[in-house]
Amino acid sequence: MVWDAWGIPAGHKPLSARIRGLLTQVFGVSGDPVARRDEGDVPLRESALTPAQRAGLVEVVGADNLSAEHRDRLLHAGGKSTPDLLRRRVEGPQDAPDAVVFPADHDQVLAVLAYCAENAVAVVPFGGGTSVVGGLDPVRGRFDAVIALDLRRLDTITRIDPVSGTATLGAGLTGPRTEELLGAHGFSLGHFPQSFEFASIGGFAATRSSGQASAGYGRFDDMVQRLKIATPSGTLELGRAPASAAGPDLRELFVGSEGTLGVITEVTLRVHPVPEAVAYQAWSFPDFETGAAALRSVVQAGAAPTVLRLSDEVETGINLARSGDIGGNPIAGCLAITTVEGSAAHVAARSAEANALLTAAGGTALGQTPAEEWEHGRFAAPYLRDALLDVGVLCETLETATTWSNVMALKAKVTGALTDALGGQGTPPLVMCHISHTYPTGASLYFTVIAKQLDDPIAQWQVAKRAVGDAIVAAGGTITHHHAVGTDHRPWLPDEVGDLGVRVLRAVKAEVDPAGILNPGKLFP
Amino acid sequence: MVWDAWGIPAGHKPLSARIRGLLTQVFGVSGDPVARRDEGDVPLRESALTPAQRAGLVEVVGADNLSAEHRDRLLHAGGKSTPDLLRRRVEGPQDAPDAVVFPADHDQVLAVLAYCAENAVAVVPFGGGTSVVGGLDPVRGRFDAVIALDLRRLDTITRIDPVSGTATLGAGLTGPRTEELLGAHGFSLGHFPQSFEFASIGGFAATRSSGQASAGYGRFDDMVQRLKIATPSGTLELGRAPASAAGPDLRELFVGSEGTLGVITEVTLRVHPVPEAVAYQAWSFPDFETGAAALRSVVQAGAAPTVLRLSDEVETGINLARSGDIGGNPIAGCLAITTVEGSAAHVAARSAEANALLTAAGGTALGQTPAEEWEHGRFAAPYLRDALLDVGVLCETLETATTWSNVMALKAKVTGALTDALGGQGTPPLVMCHISHTYPTGASLYFTVIAKQLDDPIAQWQVAKRAVGDAIVAAGGTITHHHAVGTDHRPWLPDEVGDLGVRVLRAVKAEVDPAGILNPGKLFP
Repeated sequence: MVWDAWGIPAGHKPLSARIRGLLTQVFGVSGDPVARRDEGDVPLRESALTPAQRAGLVEVVGADNLSAEHRDRLLHAGGKSTPDLLRRRVEGPQDAPDAVVFPADHDQVLAVLAYCAENAVAVVPFGGGTSVVGGLDPVRGRFDAVIALDLRRLDTITRIDPVSGTATLGAGLTGPRTEELLGAHGFSLGHFPQSFEFASIGGFAATRSSGQASAGYGRFDDMVQRLKIATPSGTLELGRAPASAAGPDLRELFVGSEGTLGVITEVTLRVHPVPEAVAYQAWSFPDFETGAAALRSVVQAGAAPTVLRLSDEVETGINLARSGDIGGNPIAGCLAITTVEGSAAHVAARSAEANALLTAAGGTALGQTPAEEWEHGRFAAPYLRDALLDVGVLCETLETATTWSNVMALKAKVTGALTDALGGQGTPPLVMCHISHTYPTGASLYFTVIAKQLDDPIAQWQVAKRAVGDAIVAAGGTITHHHAVGTDHRPWLPDEVGDLGVRVLRAVKAEVDPAGILNPGKLFP
Repeated sequence: MVWDAWGIPAGHKPLSARIRGLLTQVFGVSGDPVARRDEGDVPLRESALTPAQRAGLVEVVGADNLSAEHRDRLLHAGGKSTPDLLRRRVEGPQDAPDAVVFPADHDQVLAVLAYCAENAVAVVPFGGGTSVVGGLDPVRGRFDAVIALDLRRLDTITRIDPVSGTATLGAGLTGPRTEELLGAHGFSLGHFPQSFEFASIGGFAATRSSGQASAGYGRFDDMVQRLKIATPSGTLELGRAPASAAGPDLRELFVGSEGTLGVITEVTLRVHPVPEAVAYQAWSFPDFETGAAALRSVVQAGAAPTVLRLSDEVETGINLARSGDIGGNPIAGCLAITTVEGSAAHVAARSAEANALLTAAGGTALGQTPAEEWEHGRFAAPYLRDALLDVGVLCETLETATTWSNVMALKAKVTGALTDALGGQGTPPLVMCHISHTYPTGASLYFTVIAKQLDDPIAQWQVAKRAVGDAIVAAGGTITHHHAVGTDHRPWLPDEVGDLGVRVLRAVKAEVDPAGILNPGKLFP
């Protein structure tokens, strides 16, 4: 990915005239993009790695696999949250890890961790670099130096078990490469978060990622069968069976540990045959509450499609779910998308059952085209955000989840907090929302917020983020459904798990990472 | 439950002439039952609780809610594993907790734990008393006294959320009482393990229980939304949403913690409407391998029935799955049972899809009668075990789980280990097996083993248990799929989670139970 924005250069497009017109109309911004800096011109804080530390690490991974080059450091300077991207647009020196280390395998990861624990070097495990919660900030904690531990060389499939439907994957494999390797054997993982094109298997596990087909294939944590983890205290291999009653499930301590308790090097995952058939269907609901109740009815009946999502009135009105058509003629009411994948027989049976329930709950079938449009543009939103940031528009996303009975109240509270916090600064926002992950007992809520930038947009957003975090906790939502905690959600972790829960996590950390080198400043409040 | 056997007196029946004939034929036992002792005649080790300790605990729960009476102590002397029951048949003093304490609510549990931590009293949390792995043994550890903390008074539904399909239940509610209370609101939990009639909500959570309808409603751990836990270090309340990415999932540390890390006092669970319709169907498969592949195909297609189980040739031949007909004319090959529950539309759709797959995979539909017979007798097996133990036949069950590709190999290894270990003692066993819990990636294997008792049947079984535990580990199975670790599976926990995994668990325990009062001698190797 490029250093100061999402994705690859080919993905970056100027805003359409229609969107620029919309921005002028709503926010009064002119729509002229600022120039971005060339990466070579960006001053970096000098590397703090000592020659001895460098030599010690080179001994583990080889000279070719440690870099303190300007470009490598810059490309590992952090993740891709809006504050991250705004920070890169600020003049002056950028912070970055003091070196980037590229281990070859689990044993080298283990040796790097042992070296760093003994020699006072902080370690930020680095997968695809797509964190949107500050999970990759090069924080040194109480150490003088920090390295990024880039796992891209752990990029093989160790084993496919076609009978059991499992695959053992290196942590550094990206989403597309995983699908490519599995596809050659007739299998698919089916994990398609918005970060899919760049994020890694290890990162998905470390952050409890959830993909757009979660209704059908589950969250990433649901797919995890077995984990191999390197820690400064040694190796853990967890998960001997599809299910077990052998005490606490320790996998669930390391899934979601965000690089603070160990480095996930290998994950055995549930996979499925490449679908024989896919049925696309779009729907219109008169309003969000009716649509949410319809989604609920289909999930609670045990008839969930593979993809199941619902945009609210504002998101539908602006066509955000059909990125090629933003600002064009919207679908009436609230747009919902379903896809059903599997064998032809399964697709026929499940579609019939789901469609009958959605229709009975007030949905109007719109045919397959809007659903295909959604799928076509489903990884485009982060590029749009870059273009908006470039023309002086603040754009950020956030998400939560709650029980079905609390969905409408939580949505209203979050929208209200964003509107008040940004409106109170003279920049009334546009707040859009969708449901993209559903469960029998509840659903996620994903918000996109857009407002005119103030002179200090980072400070502007921080006011809103504090307000919305407090509002989510007060309204009974989780502080994050699939973005993870990172730096940005740390203040609310005690609200989520209690003070004793935080103490339990600290006790685990003291056991597996007694020196405290792993990803300082993340997760723990 | 009665002190020296399973269940209630009304459930105990003498063996039928047909079964007695079978036992004479296979094992050469006469079939005359031994007399059981009256509970009043059983000598108990004297209570070690000091008057001061007794007074301290009475101050918390009231004099009416602490008992050191002979009968109360005897009824809390342990669980219901075969070694437990054999031990009760041995003459001489029985061990038992020094008192039984009946707290009223979460705060009293917290206060009892605080008192015991300060005053050196071990605590065995006690639900329905159905452990079959030694999870309730009155072990004192490094303390002089141990109490059983009986949670039966935590027996209310705090909240039902009909929209979200959740219910908040007291830990002491039994299976039938839970269904009765939920049923009054039109809901059902759908958790039907063999211990259903006596076991408790808290026990289900503490042991990662899995019920006979797990294919449809999931394991108990899948149902858990929120937990309230009392520990000597304070209260934990975990689970703010149907799913979350807010770091490690700490619920999974306490689900399966078997009373060693805290006392679960309240559980919020996913529930579902009482099914509108149920379709019963029995099947015959030519052999176990074909049947297992058929179960696999239906689960991997996303078309799982609510109940899905398969008996092997031996279990089918003896009619163990149809308890009213044991020893009668068996169904040919291997018997499988399916039920599909839900709305009429869902039952029709899911049955059609599942039945087509099972038929295509070699199944012959046998109609609904054998499936109804199975359901009718599904809680009867533990009573049968008592009757067998009484006539000099050893009978025990054990279970494991593995990936689909390893099912046949694991089954052969376990059967071989049991056959060798008991045959080597001159008591060749009958080993029966079924699959009763299925997952997309694998299945459980549940074994029932019967042999002639030797003079010391406990020692006889210990030889077999050691051999089979080692065989399961060597063959890649989990040491327990739904019975938990307790005392009996402790030796193999390091095989399951590794030495570092055990250290992590110990670190958690040191934080929540620094004095080490909670359920000594269980779970931890």
